[in-house]
Amino acid sequence: MKIDLLDTLRKKNPIAFNISNFVTVQDVANGINALGASPIMSEEKNEAEPMVQMADSVTVNLGAFTEGQLEQISAVTTFANQYKKPIVIDPVAVGAVDYRKERCNELLDQIDVAVIRGNAGEIAALADVEWNAKGIDAGEGNGDLEEIAKKLAKKRNCVVVESGKTDIITDGEAVVRIYNETDLFKLHVGSGDMLSSTIGCFCGVEHDYFEAAQTATAVFDVAGEVVAKSMATPLAGSFGVQLIDELHLIDIKTVEKFANFD
Amino acid sequence: MKIDLLDTLRKKNPIAFNISNFVTVQDVANGINALGASPIMSEEKNEAEPMVQMADSVTVNLGAFTEGQLEQISAVTTFANQYKKPIVIDPVAVGAVDYRKERCNELLDQIDVAVIRGNAGEIAALADVEWNAKGIDAGEGNGDLEEIAKKLAKKRNCVVVESGKTDIITDGEAVVRIYNETDLFKLHVGSGDMLSSTIGCFCGVEHDYFEAAQTATAVFDVAGEVVAKSMATPLAGSFGVQLIDELHLIDIKTVEKFANFD
Amino acid sequence: MKIDLLDTLRKKNPIAFNISNFVTVQDVANGINALGASPIMSEEKNEAEPMVQMADSVTVNLGAFTEGQLEQISAVTTFANQYKKPIVIDPVAVGAVDYRKERCNELLDQIDVAVIRGNAGEIAALADVEWNAKGIDAGEGNGDLEEIAKKLAKKRNCVVVESGKTDIITDGEAVVRIYNETDLFKLHVGSGDMLSSTIGCFCGVEHDYFEAAQTATAVFDVAGEVVAKSMATPLAGSFGVQLIDELHLIDIKTVEKFANFD
Repeated sequence: MKIDLLDTLRKKNPIAFNISNFVTVQDVANGINALGASPIMSEEKNEAEPMVQMADSVTVNLGAFTEGQLEQISAVTTFANQYKKPIVIDPVAVGAVDYRKERCNELLDQIDVAVIRGNAGEIAALADVEWNAKGIDAGEGNGDLEEIAKKLAKKRNCVVVESGKTDIITDGEAVVRIYNETDLFKLHVGSGDMLSSTIGCFCGVEHDYFEAAQTATAVFDVAGEVVAKSMATPLAGSFGVQLIDELHLIDIKTVEKFANFD
Repeated sequence: MKIDLLDTLRKKNPIAFNISNFVTVQDVANGINALGASPIMSEEKNEAEPMVQMADSVTVNLGAFTEGQLEQISAVTTFANQYKKPIVIDPVAVGAVDYRKERCNELLDQIDVAVIRGNAGEIAALADVEWNAKGIDAGEGNGDLEEIAKKLAKKRNCVVVESGKTDIITDGEAVVRIYNETDLFKLHVGSGDMLSSTIGCFCGVEHDYFEAAQTATAVFDVAGEVVAKSMATPLAGSFGVQLIDELHLIDIKTVEKFANFD
Repeated sequence: MKIDLLDTLRKKNPIAFNISNFVTVQDVANGINALGASPIMSEEKNEAEPMVQMADSVTVNLGAFTEGQLEQISAVTTFANQYKKPIVIDPVAVGAVDYRKERCNELLDQIDVAVIRGNAGEIAALADVEWNAKGIDAGEGNGDLEEIAKKLAKKRNCVVVESGKTDIITDGEAVVRIYNETDLFKLHVGSGDMLSSTIGCFCGVEHDYFEAAQTATAVFDVAGEVVAKSMATPLAGSFGVQLIDELHLIDIKTVEKFANFD
């Protein structure tokens, strides 16, 4: 794992274009800004091309889009392919709502993506594996988590990051598992969105997206774990704030010391 | 008061569908997630039906809707009635802006609601009582606060929660008053929105909405009071964060110990 | 500098109408509410007139508008001129995206504004000075920062607040420089938006907008510096929360003691 990409990111200060979920956009912007990237946000189709041109990567969160925004998402991602900017997709709740799954699959049919990041229920839905998702939560299923992630990675020819107790990262062949975790991630609504956008930041500085996704996930998971361990009781609100603190404070040494993966 | 509904909520982990105010949506999602519910948000009409079907309750905050969203709100609330999911309405600023009052009354004419939660200015406006509201604030009036709440409860055949120094909860006949309070609620913009959504969560696990509204309000008010009492000076920003912390930490014993009502 | 405007603001509790950036709206609302104003937000054209009528000032953040919102912005600002309510404009990223610059200039051609608040890249773009902006950040240029600010102030016949290491405030002739600063402002995404909205609050209680802008900027900058100095390490997330705390706690004595300007 190329943990020193963290310093590369801070040196290059990539512009991370995010089409965000309105629920968590403020935390996402602050999180990746604290990490060392420069977030830009837009919902306007008319500025899609210059926004993509100046960006180093594009992260599209499908957590709360409307029919009207789909046109902008389509324009942005098409430009991203044209200008060879990596795309990270966060397919929120596609496991729970067919409408979302259909729109997401239409999008994935049109464009090439670098990384898809979701929970087991979302990854299973896109991999056409039966699963019992619950709202925005992962839900429960019987499939082999690694096989599901690999199946989607092969189907969409991209890297898949499947979040859960263990985070599974695969390019369809190799699999990396990151074990750093805290229950506080689930107590904070924006955690998954922030992870996806963090992956977007690292894809903006490293063309090997499998490496970028690994480092991003390790940095993010270790940051969360460091914060959680500093708390005597689980503080759901303070966790979100301190996670942003830690995304700025965390350094290579801390990640190397605590990262637990194979 | 059925304070043990707090444990029921945490056991059942209801899915709380929220049509939220874009100003405060992140805090609302984190607050009810910390409390023990599972928030889902959407502004898209095309997914209204499956969203309502999976939800245990629907909370509609009218704090910042646009003309376009009214169609989605209408679709969601119509499905909620059809699938018998309780609806909580937060009629933000209907006391200050006629346009909002008219749209809100049109909505209330169309659907059956479980609970309306607002400040005195908002409740008075919907109850056709003269009042001098100020922006999003309650403003001042001369009416009898309990009579106003009862009048609206009878008019709309629902439970009314009228927030203020004392929170008044009525089904049109019986009245419960909750005295737990802190000025910090007013210093934090999302407090009212979070209370409405908290009521939504409890309505998702208790069919007696009068009981649900009482417990929700008591839990929320005590949580705020506990946080405020722990502060040497009033910290407007930290209060919002620690309120989310406390919504997770608070237990039946704490509510029973501090709740002050009759 | 009229630092005692801070007490005037708290006494008058102005209603500050904000057309906000969806990325930072929650922080902005909480910040100006903590300061002592009463924020109202709306994206709906149909309520533009009553909203403007009840407001003491209007702040328009162009950070994330869509084509559809331009009509509402145009309606709101036209009413603001008609009802003689001061307008503060925050021209986010007009230095980086031509589309934004064009829309912003069209708006400024139509209406009279009290204050424009932006970073050097944004102010330079509106003053027709060459500059190398980077996304939402100021970027770098060779121009004389004061001359650029004065040029725009004269062109638009308004007060200009140009944020940076030193904040420059000018009415086109006189120039005031405020030196209070912390790097944490840049680590927190909503800082510029909050400053613009703070200026809006002060314009709601002081008709000399040059004075209002100076006091607002001094109060905001000192608040940020006070928070930053209390931190052993730079905490990007906590800074945002504690800045809201301090906007409520700060008093005239503190501003007088620490404000560094000429």
